[in-house]
Amino acid sequence: MSLSENFETARRLFAVPPGNGPNLAGRDPAWAGDEARSEKKRRKQASAILEDGVDELRDLQELLWAADTWSVLVIFQALDAAGKDGAIKHVMSGINPQGVEVTSFKHPSADDLDHTFLWRCMKKLPERGRIGIFNRSYYEEVLIVRVHPHLLDAQRIPDVTPGEQTWQNRFDDINTFERHLTRNGTKVIKFFLHLSKDEQKRRFLDRINEPDKHWKFSTADLAERQHWDTYMAAYEAMLSATSTENAPWYVIPADHKWVSRAAVATILAGTIKQLGLTWPTVTEVQEQQIEEARISLEAEGAAKGS
Amino acid sequence: MSLSENFETARRLFAVPPGNGPNLAGRDPAWAGDEARSEKKRRKQASAILEDGVDELRDLQELLWAADTWSVLVIFQALDAAGKDGAIKHVMSGINPQGVEVTSFKHPSADDLDHTFLWRCMKKLPERGRIGIFNRSYYEEVLIVRVHPHLLDAQRIPDVTPGEQTWQNRFDDINTFERHLTRNGTKVIKFFLHLSKDEQKRRFLDRINEPDKHWKFSTADLAERQHWDTYMAAYEAMLSATSTENAPWYVIPADHKWVSRAAVATILAGTIKQLGLTWPTVTEVQEQQIEEARISLEAEGAAKGS
Repeated sequence: MSLSENFETARRLFAVPPGNGPNLAGRDPAWAGDEARSEKKRRKQASAILEDGVDELRDLQELLWAADTWSVLVIFQALDAAGKDGAIKHVMSGINPQGVEVTSFKHPSADDLDHTFLWRCMKKLPERGRIGIFNRSYYEEVLIVRVHPHLLDAQRIPDVTPGEQTWQNRFDDINTFERHLTRNGTKVIKFFLHLSKDEQKRRFLDRINEPDKHWKFSTADLAERQHWDTYMAAYEAMLSATSTENAPWYVIPADHKWVSRAAVATILAGTIKQLGLTWPTVTEVQEQQIEEARISLEAEGAAKGS
Repeated sequence: MSLSENFETARRLFAVPPGNGPNLAGRDPAWAGDEARSEKKRRKQASAILEDGVDELRDLQELLWAADTWSVLVIFQALDAAGKDGAIKHVMSGINPQGVEVTSFKHPSADDLDHTFLWRCMKKLPERGRIGIFNRSYYEEVLIVRVHPHLLDAQRIPDVTPGEQTWQNRFDDINTFERHLTRNGTKVIKFFLHLSKDEQKRRFLDRINEPDKHWKFSTADLAERQHWDTYMAAYEAMLSATSTENAPWYVIPADHKWVSRAAVATILAGTIKQLGLTWPTVTEVQEQQIEEARISLEAEGAAKGS
């Protein structure tokens, strides 16, 4: 299967069509291909897709850099233990780090809270020719802030209360912001890693049972788990309001890491490929200058040799 | 006259009503009050208005800081020698510099050009409780860039050419950006200092004839003067598309500095006053803590004295 075929399949399976709800309840986080085929075969296929995707990405990133017209912003959102860090690591590791910047957005600082909610992300936008990855993003403003409305109070925004209108305004602001980015040469791609509640439990227990993984565990994660249904409702609303033609959301089944990583690699590479980038061409004048440079350098050698 | 009366008058005279064109040709840059009254009297009145405005601003800025809810973004746009720097200096000089930050946007850097046109301004947005002043701004993107379309090429934006659609998209992006700011607690006020071509000539000659002012003169300014009519058309379109209820433009007659400074001071103070800011109140619990602190401090003194 070629990249473009894999991309088409992934798009059909995982993209949230603009204007439609994602219907999270109807999507299986444990999806792992056609179950008529053996898991061994499916794993092998996914592994090949991931490898191809990473190879393509390596080349495409060089082309992105050389073409120097587009930049790419990749957003990852998910509940804890859904595998954001792992996906970033496995999909992006082959790429020249000069062309990529990953930013993790954790608790906003006092300085962040003294600005509008887009500000801290605006500052980290990727420059032309580069891929910027947001590990969490301004979307937290309609997720964790919606689930915990007291966080909105901390933002001290005049006349803003945690009601429907506020979330609609934020969806609006985000959509017009992403439209601005797209119009001005930043391609936006958004991944929601969709984990089941059972699989999250297994991964948390893993972290608890293996002392090596204790650094990954925080009791705060467990507290957030109590709000599972509220989070799902917030994700449903957000995915439905902010998946647009130019900046689509993909809901990636995340119970199997070999599935989610292959899907992310394919979609990322496929999207960048569709930008239709071309290598810079060299003009006749430049060719002539290069030829003159050659002559000058060779003459230098001859003079030394004499 | 009270501040609110002066503000109402200034608004009636200078604001560009949303949805309407500013009709620059019909506005007199040399306007200086009711000419039935002597110039001496009018100058005296303007001077009193400026002084009152600056006094009010000093107090309002402290309130803005203490209330810690709104921030204020003030944008100045004008052709060369219209008096932007002088207006900023004379209107803002009384204010505690801790509460104000002035940013002058000159030629964009290579790093700026590698991001969307709003990026370098986004980074300098004022934090809650402060006044941010932009001496030039993202509006240059629909002014100088519109007058000199080759500047757009330098931005290397895919699929963007210097046509009507591009300027409309930029107006759109600016309006939704300013709506985002307003919704999230940043009040936006915009001044166009409206200078006549004759007065610009006089001020340029002044700079040329007085060696002390030579540092202010650049031949590039003279080159821009050749594009006067194109600039006026660009200003007309911009003012008409981006004066909104929440972020209005004011066209300030700028041939007389004593007029423009008084107008700017009044509008700025009047706008901040209308935010209806209040001093933080102290709760009973806080009062009690303050009382306990007094007792503790006084006991300390007594112990030392013993």
